[in-house]
Amino acid sequence: MRTVFWDYETDEFKMIDQRRLPGVFEVLAYRDHKSVAQAITDMVVRGAPAIGAAAGFGLALAARESASNSTSGLLADLEAASAVLKAARPTAVNLAWAIDRVLRSATSYHPRRGPDVASADELRQVVLEEAQRIADEDVEINRRMAEHGATLIEDGDIVIHHCNTGALATVDWGTALGVIRTAWEQGKRIHVLVDETRPRLQGARLTAWELEQYGIPYDIISDNMAGHFLKTGQAQKCFVGSDRTAANGDVANKIGTYMLALAAYDNGVPFYPVVPTSTIDLSLAHGGLIPIEERDPVEVLGLQFQGEQIAPVEAHARNIAFDITPARLVTAIVTENGVVYPPFETNLRKVVES
Amino acid sequence: MRTVFWDYETDEFKMIDQRRLPGVFEVLAYRDHKSVAQAITDMVVRGAPAIGAAAGFGLALAARESASNSTSGLLADLEAASAVLKAARPTAVNLAWAIDRVLRSATSYHPRRGPDVASADELRQVVLEEAQRIADEDVEINRRMAEHGATLIEDGDIVIHHCNTGALATVDWGTALGVIRTAWEQGKRIHVLVDETRPRLQGARLTAWELEQYGIPYDIISDNMAGHFLKTGQAQKCFVGSDRTAANGDVANKIGTYMLALAAYDNGVPFYPVVPTSTIDLSLAHGGLIPIEERDPVEVLGLQFQGEQIAPVEAHARNIAFDITPARLVTAIVTENGVVYPPFETNLRKVVES
Repeated sequence: MRTVFWDYETDEFKMIDQRRLPGVFEVLAYRDHKSVAQAITDMVVRGAPAIGAAAGFGLALAARESASNSTSGLLADLEAASAVLKAARPTAVNLAWAIDRVLRSATSYHPRRGPDVASADELRQVVLEEAQRIADEDVEINRRMAEHGATLIEDGDIVIHHCNTGALATVDWGTALGVIRTAWEQGKRIHVLVDETRPRLQGARLTAWELEQYGIPYDIISDNMAGHFLKTGQAQKCFVGSDRTAANGDVANKIGTYMLALAAYDNGVPFYPVVPTSTIDLSLAHGGLIPIEERDPVEVLGLQFQGEQIAPVEAHARNIAFDITPARLVTAIVTENGVVYPPFETNLRKVVES
Repeated sequence: MRTVFWDYETDEFKMIDQRRLPGVFEVLAYRDHKSVAQAITDMVVRGAPAIGAAAGFGLALAARESASNSTSGLLADLEAASAVLKAARPTAVNLAWAIDRVLRSATSYHPRRGPDVASADELRQVVLEEAQRIADEDVEINRRMAEHGATLIEDGDIVIHHCNTGALATVDWGTALGVIRTAWEQGKRIHVLVDETRPRLQGARLTAWELEQYGIPYDIISDNMAGHFLKTGQAQKCFVGSDRTAANGDVANKIGTYMLALAAYDNGVPFYPVVPTSTIDLSLAHGGLIPIEERDPVEVLGLQFQGEQIAPVEAHARNIAFDITPARLVTAIVTENGVVYPPFETNLRKVVES
């Protein structure tokens, strides 16, 4: 079963509700693009590749919602829906990338036949097919990244992993966690230190849940413990995902990635982001240009421990969702087209354009 | 009201139960040293200076528990109680320091008069007086540290603070938070970014609660957000406490301190541990020799968010309570005898022996 998928029997878009895992496994069905945009904002689905695929299917829903019988009217409705979907979250570049790709498939299909030659229903089909193609390709790309990345893992390695980058963060298999999975399936005995990943605890909730299913040994740690394990020689590699990588190799990823990278660097431990080329944004010269999302403080304040609320009721908080890891702390970047080493300015461009 | 204190009306030792704050404010009473040792282990009381004072009063309780009418019998009972109290937690050096000091007061009092000249009850009184003296001195020492440290804070500073080092971590006033408090009372407009401090959330629970009471503006952040604020120029100083500082300036403190220090250093932001000289252990050449406590994984796994358990029920975790920040990341160390700059090997010794 995929994390996000089109159900051809019911003609609905469906997603695993990641907010409720690991306690409750529930699949939600969507029939309109605005609900999909809200679900992306609310993090029913999260992880750059999964968000991209969800947005593509959201546009397929928008095509079905449109009452227009003309292709031009349908295209106008798709453009309006694109704006709604793109606004759902700012940092992951896949959201805009997938939407633009699906839109382009529609606009390039339509002019080929000329105005009013292609039917609106044909165009609806084109949009769904492109969304499906993005989802299918994501699985294939993850498998290729995993093969490249697994060459970096040695038998016996203890690997630190931040956030969730597994099947749940993608359509299937995973990016950084996909690398770990493939290395494990190759017979390498590894142990994963799972950053719990405050504030939303994607590590403790989702990555631990996935690793349980795959049978890979792990321990959850609070994010601030990673430095101790790195400093005492109890971790040999770090693998993370990325929501957007700039042209110079600066990596935007889940908050906490930068401090993990600093600790890895300080102890000479390799630090590897695993990023599909669709998340590399060559239009941005450096990470300082990547928009950083700030979310509702309730995600920081809403914790209970043994049934009691943690923070004072009147407390206030900041909730920064991502940070930028400078390229100087990155050992190499794993993509579906190979492992990219510095200088990233030239080598990332090669791998994106290959 | 002090965090830990002897109640002379009821002849009991009393402590604020810090496990239940901020939801419930409760003062617990103790009549035997074994319960005090257990309370230290369970973190009813935490923070190196508060632990030291509690252990001193624990020994005063042991003196009362002893049925011996001879001073030599009483001393033997005190030595047995000391071993129990010292085993309660391994990392904070104050625990052993305070116990040894109280014991020394008893043994040095007893031989002065010769065997069986001093009564056991006189000795009981000596022990309580020394424990009280340690507690009183702690408040005085905190005030002096705060005066020295406050000179490092400028009007308008945003200060990052890790764990809880306030009145609750000491007998009163606080170490790092005491510095912030004094700067605030001097009229400096400051804002505190409060590391929530996983896993036990002393920042979100205790420091936020204290800052609310003092009226000092703050925001809680998850520990892994500090790097973002430092990197984007939104924090000018870092202040932390220390459970034990080695002769070379390596600082053992609450887990996460090392990663915070790395992020401060990477951005040229000063990083200041605030440490009473009683926590400086000149007998240890470097931080690698400081014992690091590992605690029950339930502290990592036991979180709920909006009523639901975070981690899978079968999940496992590691729970490292402290880490070592190497001296090279430390800008200066604030003590009650002044602010100590590198080279720490020589300058720490001077300030301890002054």
